[in-house]
Amino acid sequence: MTAPTILFAAKPERWATYEPHLRLALSAAGVSDANLTLQADPAEVDYIVYAPNSAVQDFTPYTRLKAVLNLWAGVEDVTDNATLKVPLARMVDEGLTEGMVEWCVGHALRHHLGMDAHIHGQDGVWRNGDVPPLARHRGVTVLGLGALGEAVATALAGLGFAVAGWSRSAKDIEGVQTFNGVDGLFRALSSAQIVILLLPDTPATENILNADTLAQLPKGAMIINPGRGPLIDDDALLAALDTGHIAHATLDVFRTEPLPQDHPYWAHPNVTVTPHIASETRPKTASQVIAENIWRGETGAPFLHLVDRTLGY
Amino acid sequence: MTAPTILFAAKPERWATYEPHLRLALSAAGVSDANLTLQADPAEVDYIVYAPNSAVQDFTPYTRLKAVLNLWAGVEDVTDNATLKVPLARMVDEGLTEGMVEWCVGHALRHHLGMDAHIHGQDGVWRNGDVPPLARHRGVTVLGLGALGEAVATALAGLGFAVAGWSRSAKDIEGVQTFNGVDGLFRALSSAQIVILLLPDTPATENILNADTLAQLPKGAMIINPGRGPLIDDDALLAALDTGHIAHATLDVFRTEPLPQDHPYWAHPNVTVTPHIASETRPKTASQVIAENIWRGETGAPFLHLVDRTLGY
Repeated sequence: MTAPTILFAAKPERWATYEPHLRLALSAAGVSDANLTLQADPAEVDYIVYAPNSAVQDFTPYTRLKAVLNLWAGVEDVTDNATLKVPLARMVDEGLTEGMVEWCVGHALRHHLGMDAHIHGQDGVWRNGDVPPLARHRGVTVLGLGALGEAVATALAGLGFAVAGWSRSAKDIEGVQTFNGVDGLFRALSSAQIVILLLPDTPATENILNADTLAQLPKGAMIINPGRGPLIDDDALLAALDTGHIAHATLDVFRTEPLPQDHPYWAHPNVTVTPHIASETRPKTASQVIAENIWRGETGAPFLHLVDRTLGY
Repeated sequence: MTAPTILFAAKPERWATYEPHLRLALSAAGVSDANLTLQADPAEVDYIVYAPNSAVQDFTPYTRLKAVLNLWAGVEDVTDNATLKVPLARMVDEGLTEGMVEWCVGHALRHHLGMDAHIHGQDGVWRNGDVPPLARHRGVTVLGLGALGEAVATALAGLGFAVAGWSRSAKDIEGVQTFNGVDGLFRALSSAQIVILLLPDTPATENILNADTLAQLPKGAMIINPGRGPLIDDDALLAALDTGHIAHATLDVFRTEPLPQDHPYWAHPNVTVTPHIASETRPKTASQVIAENIWRGETGAPFLHLVDRTLGY
């Protein structure tokens, strides 16, 4: 194995966090003498560890490039890049999946238990009238059954929730009632008291939660979006919140981030805005995934987690 | 089997809720022609379905009584009753256990994820600086490993938390590091970033969370008490909250309920009071447990869930 040159192309402040983890992980994966760097002659770069918001937007000069290894799960800002001709791998990080499961299960339980009434209601009034149903009588539907959606659906089913899941193509997940296709989407939503959005952002999923699909939900349903901002038609959601058809929305991702201070979501009493924290790539576990893929590239093994760029994910 | 007389001794408003479920469950359990009633000649009563806050406090006139079947998990208000000479069964209700798991896991995740900052912080400021650790790096200790504590510890371990558990006598629970005895208590607390109290209320557990044991916890630990009010030395907890040694307490049970409006817990910024809702006996599933025990009494089979009155639980 010759020593590969690996360009770290992400916001410069990430370097301090990632560099030690990447060096350790490369060494542990048996990639010896890797030239891991923030700057290199493009013609000499073998791999790019890539964040789509980095300075590298034109891959043309990278004539020796073997693969682009995305630091994030979401790849919508790179799949359309026509200058990228080599394999693109998304981040499938165990730590990211775990964090996402924790965030989604936590907010599903928060809504299930009606916690906010108590968190806000520390006024000396003993309000013990409303007992929530058991989780087994609470329908939760997860839209998107990729690595993240499947893990979230499985964890919710493990806690007893009545879980349905929907994806473009048919899937089989133990303990989860699965649906697919357009008809399936309407059916998956019809019993959903809580909806969790974990779809990729593609032309086919944009505005998947719109006036028509929101109308399929039972009155009082709650929305949790840790997926992507464009999955939701924001005007339709605000309208459904105003009529009370949707009781609450907890939103972690938005078309514009940070969410502008004057956006109606901030002021709406039945919306909780969280600042894109549902899950973060964890430097240690993510570095191991990247090192594994570089080892694969160097030894001729197939790359893991390749993106199908015609599907967009 | 002769038709047993079953006295329902609880607050009268419970009768409307329980009567249909109990009748169905008795019939399904094969207890035919049961005389389920709100009033009976004490000398003719075979079983009492019992809430400790009911009018029945002297069991002496119940000369034919075969067993007292508690409607609640907690039995501290009846174990000391010297007039009770027959077997006493506590409620071990699947619905109650499920509800308790949901409440405990929900609030553990709420604290783990730091949700309150976002629930309170809907002011247009994008605060994405604090990424919580993964659950596998978060120590949660459950005090009390009875039916409820074991179920909660197992569910938290299933979500990846680093779970320790403590009980009076040694227990073995998969995925949970277990401790017992006095030395064990100090060790179980020393790594606990979140502590969940699910002990019974006995002389041995009163004030188990006191100045000494709170001092064992790492700085910034959080307390969740869905167990019993007297488990906590309230003054010691308030002092530890004031110094910041304890970051937050979510308390569902209190020495006096409803918690008086002028109690310092209501006003403390780092305390969340919830009104004894962590789990409720569910009439349907609880009725099945009671019917099963009456069937056992009638057929000579051993009673389930008997209380050891020398231990108090």
